[in-house]
Amino acid sequence: MQQATSVTEMNLDKQIVASLRSVLSRGAHPLHEPCFQGNEQCYVHECIASTFVSSTGYYVDEFERRLAEFTGARRAVALVNGTAALQIALKLAGVEQGDEVLVPALTFVATANAVHYLGATPHFVDSSSETLGLDPNALADWLKSIAERTPNGTRNRRTGRRIRAIVPMHTFGHPCDIEGLLALTTDYRLQLVEDASESLGSYYHGRHTGTFGLLGTVSFNGNKIITTGGGGAILTNDEPLADQAKHLITTAKKQHRWEYIHDDVGYNFRMPNLNAALGCAQLEQLPDFLASKRLLAERYTQVFAGIPRVRIMIEPPGCRSNYWLQTLLLDESIADQRNTILETTNNVGLMTRPAWTLMHRLSIYRQCPRAPLPSVESLSRRIINIPSSAGLA
Amino acid sequence: MQQATSVTEMNLDKQIVASLRSVLSRGAHPLHEPCFQGNEQCYVHECIASTFVSSTGYYVDEFERRLAEFTGARRAVALVNGTAALQIALKLAGVEQGDEVLVPALTFVATANAVHYLGATPHFVDSSSETLGLDPNALADWLKSIAERTPNGTRNRRTGRRIRAIVPMHTFGHPCDIEGLLALTTDYRLQLVEDASESLGSYYHGRHTGTFGLLGTVSFNGNKIITTGGGGAILTNDEPLADQAKHLITTAKKQHRWEYIHDDVGYNFRMPNLNAALGCAQLEQLPDFLASKRLLAERYTQVFAGIPRVRIMIEPPGCRSNYWLQTLLLDESIADQRNTILETTNNVGLMTRPAWTLMHRLSIYRQCPRAPLPSVESLSRRIINIPSSAGLA
Repeated sequence: MQQATSVTEMNLDKQIVASLRSVLSRGAHPLHEPCFQGNEQCYVHECIASTFVSSTGYYVDEFERRLAEFTGARRAVALVNGTAALQIALKLAGVEQGDEVLVPALTFVATANAVHYLGATPHFVDSSSETLGLDPNALADWLKSIAERTPNGTRNRRTGRRIRAIVPMHTFGHPCDIEGLLALTTDYRLQLVEDASESLGSYYHGRHTGTFGLLGTVSFNGNKIITTGGGGAILTNDEPLADQAKHLITTAKKQHRWEYIHDDVGYNFRMPNLNAALGCAQLEQLPDFLASKRLLAERYTQVFAGIPRVRIMIEPPGCRSNYWLQTLLLDESIADQRNTILETTNNVGLMTRPAWTLMHRLSIYRQCPRAPLPSVESLSRRIINIPSSAGLA
Repeated sequence: MQQATSVTEMNLDKQIVASLRSVLSRGAHPLHEPCFQGNEQCYVHECIASTFVSSTGYYVDEFERRLAEFTGARRAVALVNGTAALQIALKLAGVEQGDEVLVPALTFVATANAVHYLGATPHFVDSSSETLGLDPNALADWLKSIAERTPNGTRNRRTGRRIRAIVPMHTFGHPCDIEGLLALTTDYRLQLVEDASESLGSYYHGRHTGTFGLLGTVSFNGNKIITTGGGGAILTNDEPLADQAKHLITTAKKQHRWEYIHDDVGYNFRMPNLNAALGCAQLEQLPDFLASKRLLAERYTQVFAGIPRVRIMIEPPGCRSNYWLQTLLLDESIADQRNTILETTNNVGLMTRPAWTLMHRLSIYRQCPRAPLPSVESLSRRIINIPSSAGLA
């Protein structure tokens, strides 16, 4: 009689499939799918019936109000997507053509693109393996070796360019060491613009991510914890900056009964009311989504505890993560099995993916300045995101 | 017994109010409001139920397919708005940092902004009072005086910059003399990118506007003849260019099962499926909207025929206009009454507006090169847009 193979005797990829299957229901599971079980249909119906589907309307105002309330930011401004939000936030933070902006090498390409759109250069720095976000200690060492404080701000000695801002990103929803970074911004007179695209519902020592810097941004793309179809927002505690953001994304048109005067080169970046209607319904369910995702993280943590040299990423101490994308971390010693694991899981309908290609490895950003990046080089070999939808727990 | 004052004895502003009232129902009338009497609620409901509300899905594909079919373009690519569509179309047409692009001084600011976003300079040229669009004769004279043909294309002798493209805009839906302009693009090796934001459903000699140049763009903003909340599209007969457009607006991410490789600095500019669902329903009603707007133009033409020195703008010979925004043209001799007319009409709830501030008069574009602009200077004193919604006829 043949004995069932015990999990620990299987190959690692098979073990991982078995562990995922012990948490998830049968069938295929995407990495992240949205969940519309609240007032989505109702609000969107109402929005169309009102005929206000475009750039103004009740839902845009309401979405901005509720988002500010939820995050504790004084103001929230809704935009067409998170990339646009970051571009405008960086512009309002004073990033100009020819500047450099410190961004993680481990991020989605939009972080670097937003810098590039302004004619500035992304300057890639390393992340901590504890938070997956920018590492203040590594950054402090790096700035000590390349940065020079001048009356006009900090200058990169090697490139001669001004370093204007720093854009931490809270990877997969886990808050980075934002206080460590804030201390550096004071030392070097840098603006802090938080890319909280992935971390709606995540807190650092009780304060919502995206509310620490001069401006922060969130994303409501279809794969995020809540979605507006496409959408993003700027968070800020600075009322005049919020007004400026709103003005800039509304083609910088001055208020007038009929005249069309634009006092700046503005953008067409407002979130349509139709999308905000969906967003209002989604925000109402965010507390439930957060609870589900936390539960899923716990279940995954339990089952993967049985597999040596593999662990589920958990929130850093003092932080509360939204657990947007659940992350499996392989030990460096088994990192060479990453592609096999990706193959096997995807082949059986369990969608998984590695971390993004590191920014400095993309041909478009290969020439940009960068710090030593040992930690993200290792992380990028070891990260596997696994099915993470709120509906799974 | 007091006699009723006849229309011709009234002041001009009162005559115009009376004429508008004879066509429109009681109450307030915005300049343009959308009309959702088709499958809008149904398709959007279905879209949310499918959970595909974001950057991919049935409705995006379907909207692109139907839009191509309607316009006769080989391909249509849906974007987040018309400004983004123009920016990407210009980029694909080869506009680079430091180039000049010929654009009408009489246009919405987005036309000039799209050029500016690429680091290029808008160069403002005059429009014809017959079409309200770029005047090929005036442009030919201007190019003769400033343009120099070189092996690398046309050079502006005065600024030293390359003139790369020309962007005619079909103002208020009326087709401009696109064939006259095409002849110039051949002479001067310029790319033609049509800004057909306002002219969905308008035809020049039987061919849909936006399909003459290398690429054309349309807008589906809330005030347009059909709306997707916010949205736009690129039209082109060049399949590889359409594929490139789709790639560029999808963060230039290469297709791969799990890897994130971006081979260009791309954009996050796709139209969400939610907005495309609304668009599919709107496109179905476009023929009805076109018929209504034509009828409204006829009614307006009739009633304003009774007022001397005032006329309704009608489609240029050989063209079929979508009559997106109905336009009252004052004779130059009464242009000084424009503001009074705007005041009086808006005060009684009949929304009217003048033409946009001419681009070269905005502080942001004052320093840009420009041709003599006698025709648009006159037009901008004489144009008044009046209530134009499809639901009015």
